[in-house]
Amino acid sequence: MDEFELIRRYFDRKPAAAGVEIGIGDDGAVLAPHPEKHQVQVIDTLVEGVHFPADTNPADIAYRAVAVNLSDIAAMGASPRWMTLALTLNNASETWVEAFASGLFEAADAHDLALVGGDTTSGPVVTVTVNITGELEKGSALLRSGGRVGDTIFVTGTLGDASAGLALLQKNEPNAFLVQRFLRPTARIATGKQLLRKASAAIDISDGLLGDLRKLLSASKVGGEIDIEKLPLSDALCERFGDAERQRFALTGGDDYELCFTGSRDAVRGIAGITAIGTVTASPRLVCRLHNEIVQVDDSGYRHFR
Amino acid sequence: MDEFELIRRYFDRKPAAAGVEIGIGDDGAVLAPHPEKHQVQVIDTLVEGVHFPADTNPADIAYRAVAVNLSDIAAMGASPRWMTLALTLNNASETWVEAFASGLFEAADAHDLALVGGDTTSGPVVTVTVNITGELEKGSALLRSGGRVGDTIFVTGTLGDASAGLALLQKNEPNAFLVQRFLRPTARIATGKQLLRKASAAIDISDGLLGDLRKLLSASKVGGEIDIEKLPLSDALCERFGDAERQRFALTGGDDYELCFTGSRDAVRGIAGITAIGTVTASPRLVCRLHNEIVQVDDSGYRHFR
Repeated sequence: MDEFELIRRYFDRKPAAAGVEIGIGDDGAVLAPHPEKHQVQVIDTLVEGVHFPADTNPADIAYRAVAVNLSDIAAMGASPRWMTLALTLNNASETWVEAFASGLFEAADAHDLALVGGDTTSGPVVTVTVNITGELEKGSALLRSGGRVGDTIFVTGTLGDASAGLALLQKNEPNAFLVQRFLRPTARIATGKQLLRKASAAIDISDGLLGDLRKLLSASKVGGEIDIEKLPLSDALCERFGDAERQRFALTGGDDYELCFTGSRDAVRGIAGITAIGTVTASPRLVCRLHNEIVQVDDSGYRHFR
Repeated sequence: MDEFELIRRYFDRKPAAAGVEIGIGDDGAVLAPHPEKHQVQVIDTLVEGVHFPADTNPADIAYRAVAVNLSDIAAMGASPRWMTLALTLNNASETWVEAFASGLFEAADAHDLALVGGDTTSGPVVTVTVNITGELEKGSALLRSGGRVGDTIFVTGTLGDASAGLALLQKNEPNAFLVQRFLRPTARIATGKQLLRKASAAIDISDGLLGDLRKLLSASKVGGEIDIEKLPLSDALCERFGDAERQRFALTGGDDYELCFTGSRDAVRGIAGITAIGTVTASPRLVCRLHNEIVQVDDSGYRHFR
């Protein structure tokens, strides 16, 4: 299929969204930013064979590529507005592209996120890069660096589902709920916005709770203690895995795309779907407790280039 | 090398640039857009083996990845401000990354373009996606759709050098000037800004003059006539290639990253480095003349997914 025809048929939707003066079809998009807000910009790539199996449903690939970026937008407390897409295809069929576009817009439409530009290329493996621009009130961005000693450590949703889902996919023992949690992560946009001026620091959990919480604590120049028994776990995870495995998924599994944040219990009271799991401390370390005993956890999380 | 260490060492430069509230290192960049301007956003990908040979100097890969995006910014008449980078590496050495970063910042620094965020992943081939945000006065963007019957058709610089350089690279007969024109295209940012409110329409020449001029004419719902003898050619191209070959490179070669634009001769008088090559007509076709005879040219240019 011809590149220009491909774009016209599946990605160029009219009418354009709010703030989009010129969308897809010129050398660049022309956008009207809010005159009194700051912008948040994020970019993330998914590579076939690295971030998803080659035979993944293209709608799921696209959904996930948008969702992982929305998760970064959520972790800053911003409202998503515009997206660009760089899509490298490997002899994709028109059916494949159509399914991909459906997943892309499903994820985007849920958050009034407009696709404003893109580039399609060919290469040996499918590679999807999404760049999202969001907006928020000046000076309100949720940073990693604001955690204070005495703050409570919270997470959204349940932990470990996505990595458990991936493990089951790879063993060919799929569990519908857990696999969905891997393929279609829920970006916590609404919660991120509720946390503005309430949480002291936030990060999204992409590499695993311990690894990402450590980044937040390090940026805030503090330490922390978490209680493993307090980690929120889904029924599906608990039914399928024993204590040790589910704790490992929840602590280091990665791909959750939940938020981890710090703040006072009073400030965040009334915000739904969050769980207190520990406390910010003055020590530079992150300590894990289980049944009130300090335990060691293999906590490297998932990192590229290991 | 560890991903976080890689970013810190080669890509995270302080102090941050103008308008960058929070740069690399959090979940997203926080940016302060100009309250009275519009933004232009562009994204483009280069894939190893498709857009550059695998043994290309990493500094040249990075320079080119930035330059091709700057070229789109130039074609809109915008001033570049912020860039995000999605870099997929295939077991790159630290030396490779260091060279890549040097080429990236060389291209960016020439235009006060700040790297504000990015993502590094691993994959089977090097894939570089750059997203650039620029700014311009509201309502001033140079679109493809403004060409009017009677306008003159212009191009910047010289045509055909890049594709000739690539052909020589592939035949292992490198010519320093022509190969540089392929590896390190000159984004016409200054000219693009001069053309604001003077040119009627503009596009950058990435796929070849004929293919890209046709896109401009089609968007403007007009036709055109160009005179092949008027195409600006470099001395290096003329010394190395005969009439037929150099005309083919100039007409359909691609990778020039010069601007093609329309406007009245009076409006653009005094702008340096531009050449009139033809006229916008009411006919829906693009006609090429050589020695005043109409000639047929294989004009598909370079398209993906052929």
